[in-house]
Amino acid sequence: MKLATLKNQTPDGRLVLVSRDLTKAVDVSHIAPTMQQAIERWQDVEPALRELEQAINVNTLDGVFEFDTTQAAAPLPRAWQWLDGSLFLSHGDLMQQAFNHAPIKDADIIPLIYQGAGDDFRGPNDDIVLPAEEHGIDFEGEFAVIVDEVPMGTPADRALEHVRLITMVNDVSLRTMAPREMQTGFGFVQAKPSTSFAAVAITPDELGDAWRDGRVHLPLHVSWNGEWFGHPNGGAMHFGFHELIAHAALTRRLSAGTVLGSGTVSNSDRSVGSACISERRAIDVIQYGEIRTGFMKFGDQVRISASLPDGSEPFGAIDQKIAVCTK
Amino acid sequence: MKLATLKNQTPDGRLVLVSRDLTKAVDVSHIAPTMQQAIERWQDVEPALRELEQAINVNTLDGVFEFDTTQAAAPLPRAWQWLDGSLFLSHGDLMQQAFNHAPIKDADIIPLIYQGAGDDFRGPNDDIVLPAEEHGIDFEGEFAVIVDEVPMGTPADRALEHVRLITMVNDVSLRTMAPREMQTGFGFVQAKPSTSFAAVAITPDELGDAWRDGRVHLPLHVSWNGEWFGHPNGGAMHFGFHELIAHAALTRRLSAGTVLGSGTVSNSDRSVGSACISERRAIDVIQYGEIRTGFMKFGDQVRISASLPDGSEPFGAIDQKIAVCTK
Repeated sequence: MKLATLKNQTPDGRLVLVSRDLTKAVDVSHIAPTMQQAIERWQDVEPALRELEQAINVNTLDGVFEFDTTQAAAPLPRAWQWLDGSLFLSHGDLMQQAFNHAPIKDADIIPLIYQGAGDDFRGPNDDIVLPAEEHGIDFEGEFAVIVDEVPMGTPADRALEHVRLITMVNDVSLRTMAPREMQTGFGFVQAKPSTSFAAVAITPDELGDAWRDGRVHLPLHVSWNGEWFGHPNGGAMHFGFHELIAHAALTRRLSAGTVLGSGTVSNSDRSVGSACISERRAIDVIQYGEIRTGFMKFGDQVRISASLPDGSEPFGAIDQKIAVCTK
Repeated sequence: MKLATLKNQTPDGRLVLVSRDLTKAVDVSHIAPTMQQAIERWQDVEPALRELEQAINVNTLDGVFEFDTTQAAAPLPRAWQWLDGSLFLSHGDLMQQAFNHAPIKDADIIPLIYQGAGDDFRGPNDDIVLPAEEHGIDFEGEFAVIVDEVPMGTPADRALEHVRLITMVNDVSLRTMAPREMQTGFGFVQAKPSTSFAAVAITPDELGDAWRDGRVHLPLHVSWNGEWFGHPNGGAMHFGFHELIAHAALTRRLSAGTVLGSGTVSNSDRSVGSACISERRAIDVIQYGEIRTGFMKFGDQVRISASLPDGSEPFGAIDQKIAVCTK
């Protein structure tokens, strides 16, 4: 089942059900007006949504309209909690090797994760509006999950029960700001502006056995201004999402609608490229002894999409441009 | 004007207006059903709320009932963004002196601030439910502001226009977890469980000239199990809230209902005590060469309140106990 949020002049938009091929949608706001409310009442609303899902996929539903991703907000246009990991160890290894960063202690046994700001997510075709190129504008292609309420102390082996939806993220990052913010120990504020999401969030069954071990075992295709940039596979995540959820829930409950991200997808096989510029720059340094890749400029475009073995794109594509903030 | 949220079995509760002396309340959900909606539509709802404010304070209002803080949720039971600063430099100085921490570079010229989790705030008399004493349970008495929408790039000299409400915070912290999380550079996740708030959030005019320069110039009285622990003054904040807001809004808009905290209130005059145990432990080390103060135990109680020159407590008191998570 695939769900999306259409923009409607309210902060949380309106919930729609989308056909598997992403061409058609139907309003389901009579079942749950918003994605947040659907997640909060998942057990109650899922049966009604599942009935419509069958109908929309066999073309027997009234009220169906064309699904236009430019009208889509993020599946959750805002989230009460947005936790983003850094769970692909080859990414950290490359950064350390290239820039002589000290390794982060125990990153292979304790999941690395930070609190992000969930108050202002962007849709898949929304411009990424930023104040200045010199902040080092970068994309990060990621997978993410949306959970219902996770009680405090939930162990990893019970955590996947709470994963209701899976989606795809462009964790826009400002690289010149990150080192200082990391040095303070307080994590990212200015270095992580508003995050962008795929048009749809989908139930795990939509991925078949590509969703296993709490990981999305699919390549994430990234292109920058129309040129291939990488297609690393999400299966290389060092920790599964269940371990990320258990880590975050150790000392608090996670409220329904919490979004957890994987961090930039990265593989040790360099032939598959990267899902963020920062990693390509690290490889530049290792291969050529110098950085040869600049960051994004205003007007630049990035496209991020996962593909199933049949070539279809289960989340559609994040496809957006960088724009200058004119205010 | 003083506003509060009463628990009503929904995640966001219902909005009430509270009398200046905190004894009486009246339902204002016909004006705005929740605090979040009041903040989002502040310009529209403020006039109607102000009319009721006058009436409740002169006892001419129907429908008034006794205000019971045990029924109060946090003013915003959940926030789309919760940013907490560390803006009292004497706190950092003491920690560095006692524990040989490296000073945080430029902490006197760039505000220190982290993203917290806003999905699960607790009311002023709610138990602080935690899994284990050995995590080093601490309180932190703070002031906080709630803003309406702050556009990206808002400068400090325009930022105070967005401060709609002021409140008081117990930023519960787990001290044995913080050092490792700071070392990763990713900031606090496990070390910052759910945060507690005063029963009311109040408009700046309620503080008279104690609200100036973007700071709350009032002593914050903290007691632990009924014993005085400190009464440092909020006026010693190194940065004003306007500077914190401008810092956070440099690369993103802050959505309406964003909460910004001051960090634990701390003064260089040691005779006023501290607003968190961690700081007392640092002073132990400096004074006695050893830590003499333990952290909180299950069943322990903390009380936090600010006082105006006439002795009244404009926010009431945060007064709560530590309880063990039994699930």
